[in-house]
Amino acid sequence: MPRSPIKPLSSTSTKPPAGTRDFLPDDVRRREYVISIVRRVYELYGYEPLETPAFENIETLLGKYGEEGNKLIFKILRRGEHEASGDADLALRYDLTVPLARVIAQYQNELPKFWKRYQIQPVWRADRPARGRFREFYQCDVDAIGSLSPSVEADILGAVCEVLSRCGFEGYSLRLNHRLVLSGLLNAAGVPQPLHADALVALDKLDKIGRDKVIEEFVARGIERTVAERCLVSFDVDRAERPADTFKRLHGALGEADSGVANLQQIVSLAEQTPAAGRIRIDLSLARGLSYYTGAIMEIAVPDLAGSLGGGGRYDNLVGMFLGRDVPACGFSIGLERIIVVMTERGMFPADVTGSGVDAMVTIWNEESRADALALAGELRRAGLRVDVYPEADKLGKQFKYAAGSQVPFVLIVGDDERAKGTVSVKDLRSGDQQAVSRAEAAEYVRARR
Amino acid sequence: MPRSPIKPLSSTSTKPPAGTRDFLPDDVRRREYVISIVRRVYELYGYEPLETPAFENIETLLGKYGEEGNKLIFKILRRGEHEASGDADLALRYDLTVPLARVIAQYQNELPKFWKRYQIQPVWRADRPARGRFREFYQCDVDAIGSLSPSVEADILGAVCEVLSRCGFEGYSLRLNHRLVLSGLLNAAGVPQPLHADALVALDKLDKIGRDKVIEEFVARGIERTVAERCLVSFDVDRAERPADTFKRLHGALGEADSGVANLQQIVSLAEQTPAAGRIRIDLSLARGLSYYTGAIMEIAVPDLAGSLGGGGRYDNLVGMFLGRDVPACGFSIGLERIIVVMTERGMFPADVTGSGVDAMVTIWNEESRADALALAGELRRAGLRVDVYPEADKLGKQFKYAAGSQVPFVLIVGDDERAKGTVSVKDLRSGDQQAVSRAEAAEYVRARR
Repeated sequence: MPRSPIKPLSSTSTKPPAGTRDFLPDDVRRREYVISIVRRVYELYGYEPLETPAFENIETLLGKYGEEGNKLIFKILRRGEHEASGDADLALRYDLTVPLARVIAQYQNELPKFWKRYQIQPVWRADRPARGRFREFYQCDVDAIGSLSPSVEADILGAVCEVLSRCGFEGYSLRLNHRLVLSGLLNAAGVPQPLHADALVALDKLDKIGRDKVIEEFVARGIERTVAERCLVSFDVDRAERPADTFKRLHGALGEADSGVANLQQIVSLAEQTPAAGRIRIDLSLARGLSYYTGAIMEIAVPDLAGSLGGGGRYDNLVGMFLGRDVPACGFSIGLERIIVVMTERGMFPADVTGSGVDAMVTIWNEESRADALALAGELRRAGLRVDVYPEADKLGKQFKYAAGSQVPFVLIVGDDERAKGTVSVKDLRSGDQQAVSRAEAAEYVRARR
Repeated sequence: MPRSPIKPLSSTSTKPPAGTRDFLPDDVRRREYVISIVRRVYELYGYEPLETPAFENIETLLGKYGEEGNKLIFKILRRGEHEASGDADLALRYDLTVPLARVIAQYQNELPKFWKRYQIQPVWRADRPARGRFREFYQCDVDAIGSLSPSVEADILGAVCEVLSRCGFEGYSLRLNHRLVLSGLLNAAGVPQPLHADALVALDKLDKIGRDKVIEEFVARGIERTVAERCLVSFDVDRAERPADTFKRLHGALGEADSGVANLQQIVSLAEQTPAAGRIRIDLSLARGLSYYTGAIMEIAVPDLAGSLGGGGRYDNLVGMFLGRDVPACGFSIGLERIIVVMTERGMFPADVTGSGVDAMVTIWNEESRADALALAGELRRAGLRVDVYPEADKLGKQFKYAAGSQVPFVLIVGDDERAKGTVSVKDLRSGDQQAVSRAEAAEYVRARR
């Protein structure tokens, strides 16, 4: 709390800073609902929670996100007499992967050899604010550290599907591909090794710009047109194709012994034992723009939704950045903000999340009944109901109007009559019904009908 | 995630920045446990969640916390070409009250007339780091906006007691006093009005420095020694005294009609209908250092604990700072970090919070049984168990050693024998017992014993 009362400063804007949002109760409830599902599922899968500070020493972050990333890092002024110099010594968390890498190095002797952690925290990026692009947003990462086993990918795919199903998504699938397979296909099509990264950046845009423009981009990046066209043929698969058929074609193209294909097959086969069963589609055109993936790559696909609700993959050379040696890792990032938008648009939140935060309001009959109103509220709360007490001994009509304006479903009244009879009048503001209920049964009456 | 793989930078320190902490799984679980209690109770009491951005426009914060506070605000460099100039345009949240005041002004047409909100978020202060003093820490505020009614204080006192009881605290009390009563007593003792603020600052130290040093400080601040001594007599009450007796003495000192005493009496009487019943002690020496309180002030007192786990009061002239008019308000701030420290020291966390985050680990018998291990894990997870799957087909001894090192209570094995018989061997690593259980009953077996 502030240290002293201050004069009103009506000239100051009261909007949140550009690119950030205030989360009013409805917003918080929706986000907490999704976060509680994610948390619950990841814990069932043996992932453990990690949280790191909002800011890091600036040298921890600088140089980790490329030239462009450096510019988008929010930098914090050094305190004290140095403040005037413009020197920055701290910077706001830009993602959850670099802090994870730092934690792995710092606590290497305390953390288990196979460490499965999840982390759900905001990150900050000084991007130009735009619709759906914020300067403060939550990331929701899960990473399994320390093993090259295909069980790891299968387990992550299972957990992600469990999250989506519990959120109410149906008909979704997980697109799966493999960096080694992509490399193999590019080689087979005749794309020279040094141009593979360029090819993947172009391929990543297939969904957005279409086949012809991707070919133009291949050409612009120095790949021969015939090679580009051959490439696109090998990536252009029917996304509804069963994995077994895709593997047959891949064995034809890359040989029976290709290690990328073998790894993919293991992952798909293991994932059949998880909630991802039947949901995996091999999508050879899936590239995932980021260059640090080294094995399987994966992405959520939801029917009638452009873009993805999240993605991830294996990246064995990254989280060891502070440790100084490679550490195998596979991770997935769920697009929390996007999931909330889609669930809101599609009406997927349960009524108790989107409805009022209060189940019932107790009115005050008159000044003398103030204490009794608090006592009744206590009885209802002990039964697990969320209860508000109207604070002032206003006219009853005013109290009802207030409750209706706040979308409170039930209003309880104990007037002189009710007190004499040991009852409570309970009005359902949605239907208009009003019933006299014995006081001892009031909580159960509301609970059964809310 | 970072945009490109990078070279190891082993020279960078991997500690979190000074004054901040990494929260490893045990830490997160403990904090989440307390937060979930606070959230649940505040929601039962009809408070609604609010979250605001981590940073505010710098002019929103500057000048709100006094000269000293201005220096402790973390300031963020303006982005882009301005970065070099050292100009700051944003600043990290310093408390939860100024953002609340901004939100009240910004959404005045959407928020209810009586708004009860809670907010649990980190704040940042560039204090010199010390034991127990951090630069990043959580605040946990609850405030009821818009009403002068004593029901408000009673409701907050009830909610706070409910939180403490659910956390497992016993024998605690709520110290209660009133700014108007303090003023009345200072007047009655002969302290001139302009010296009241000085007197309260000195009085606030009574617990720390004792009676004699407080008198010295009164004198140093320009209050006559005889007046100071008279003051201390009127504040020096037996803290175990029942409120009714205190009120009797106050009526003697201030008259029957004193509005502060009347307000306190109403609050105490109403609070008897809440979980605060029997827990309130009038403590006339309670001053709460902050100058913005205007009515009741309150503080948690826990047996055998110096200092407080939280406090609050009525402050009717503060949250309207951006609105440009006064708005009645009463709030309480629970000292989340302190509560966690005390609960940890006193062993108050339930075993499932402090124990392993995993209930059982499924071993892998050999490469061929990898899929079956995932299937078994799925069966256990569907029963609500938190289950890890060992990722590599290592020797069984190594897998057991790993589980023991991670404090996992149960390890499950499906070897060739078990597979043939349709059983699972379940080993309780705490007792060393190993039992063969039918596969269908494995989940229930673990659940009953974890």
